[in-house]
Amino acid sequence: MGVTSALDLNDARRLRSDRARQVADLLRCQIQRGAFESGVLPKEERIVAEFGTTRNAVRDALDLLRAEGLVERLPGVGTLVTAVKVPHGLHRLLGLNETLHEHGDIVNELRAGGRITPPAAISARLGLPEGEPVVYIERLRRLGGVPLSLDQTYLEPELGTSLLAQDLEHEDVFVLIERLSGPLGRADLTIEAVNADPHSAAVLEAPRGAALLLAERLTHLADGRPVDLEFIRFRGDRLTMRGTLHRSL
Amino acid sequence: MGVTSALDLNDARRLRSDRARQVADLLRCQIQRGAFESGVLPKEERIVAEFGTTRNAVRDALDLLRAEGLVERLPGVGTLVTAVKVPHGLHRLLGLNETLHEHGDIVNELRAGGRITPPAAISARLGLPEGEPVVYIERLRRLGGVPLSLDQTYLEPELGTSLLAQDLEHEDVFVLIERLSGPLGRADLTIEAVNADPHSAAVLEAPRGAALLLAERLTHLADGRPVDLEFIRFRGDRLTMRGTLHRSL
Repeated sequence: MGVTSALDLNDARRLRSDRARQVADLLRCQIQRGAFESGVLPKEERIVAEFGTTRNAVRDALDLLRAEGLVERLPGVGTLVTAVKVPHGLHRLLGLNETLHEHGDIVNELRAGGRITPPAAISARLGLPEGEPVVYIERLRRLGGVPLSLDQTYLEPELGTSLLAQDLEHEDVFVLIERLSGPLGRADLTIEAVNADPHSAAVLEAPRGAALLLAERLTHLADGRPVDLEFIRFRGDRLTMRGTLHRSL
Repeated sequence: MGVTSALDLNDARRLRSDRARQVADLLRCQIQRGAFESGVLPKEERIVAEFGTTRNAVRDALDLLRAEGLVERLPGVGTLVTAVKVPHGLHRLLGLNETLHEHGDIVNELRAGGRITPPAAISARLGLPEGEPVVYIERLRRLGGVPLSLDQTYLEPELGTSLLAQDLEHEDVFVLIERLSGPLGRADLTIEAVNADPHSAAVLEAPRGAALLLAERLTHLADGRPVDLEFIRFRGDRLTMRGTLHRSL
């Protein structure tokens, strides 16, 4: 088996768009890891040489990153990094302010808050009798003034009622729960990618159809009681989730 | 604080589309958890009563789920579940065949495979001297004949070369690595949501711009050596990631 020229592997069968995707993924990863300290990507010719591919594949790759809102081409200057996504830790259960404390302050806009009689599916998840009220909170969360996530939160009624009197604008729900009810235990988490519906896109100030990370998270107190069910829409262009998996448990 | 009527919380300030999103999220979650055994959603009137919201909000919610490809309306029958996403475990490091063994067999189409001279960024991640070749493998992975993910894999050269002679069509790279090089240790994982570029969408047989889960994963052997760097595009309409987070480490 010979060594083929870098990314032009199996050239005859490999499309320019396959190479472009490959280049784009490597550049995206480098942007994310802060490899371009000046905020300017290397010149096209340098990327072509470094990746051992064609100028067309590199141009297409830069177009893909531009479509994702990560870079912008500035005539006479080059390709600038315009967005670096913030990392949400997956290594332990953390609120947004906790996990992003190095990146700035999260400010929450309370869009709704109060007691509701929930559908049976919510009662079941929270281990409550059917028909018992829960507290519902809806927040738009901003980092640096720009929307980062839209959160729908269903809380066990006693805790939730106390929580409504707290500083929901500046504090994580997790921190408030621990102050009011004692330590948290575990959370069951499901992560999906969905396209933003038009209204969610408008609220999040994202393009229609933008890719979102949708997290459903059921959080329990340390004693095992489920108290907090959340549906969180994160803007895909602003946040990644980052953690470590182990082969043996 | 009084109990407002279910999801019509703070009615005056709350838009129909906010309520629709809320209903859609709860239904999506129930679909995902297999709550509708018959594969048919309850009639609109029942959802309206159960959620304590308006018929318009329920209709909009069903439209959102239809746009996501999860349900379909069949005149005279009702709203049918057309897709249930398969769950990729986040609790430990698993290959796709391992994590989805209850859901069917994964069949891989090898789109490219061979030695390349990688860009410096790849060498650095794999702990290799610059200019040393790596093995690149590109696979389209199908479950039940339908594309689930498109994987780009960069492997340490010795291991990668042995791996090229294995049954890459039917086996997980993780299983093959363990057979050839001994037990895996940990992987560093980053998860993002991105819109599919036109070519990736075509390969994955997904709509243009479809939301994808993009995973970047660097896997190490048990002795700590990094051997496998992957960029994986999962179709957002076919797969979720599911795990448990703990508050204390």
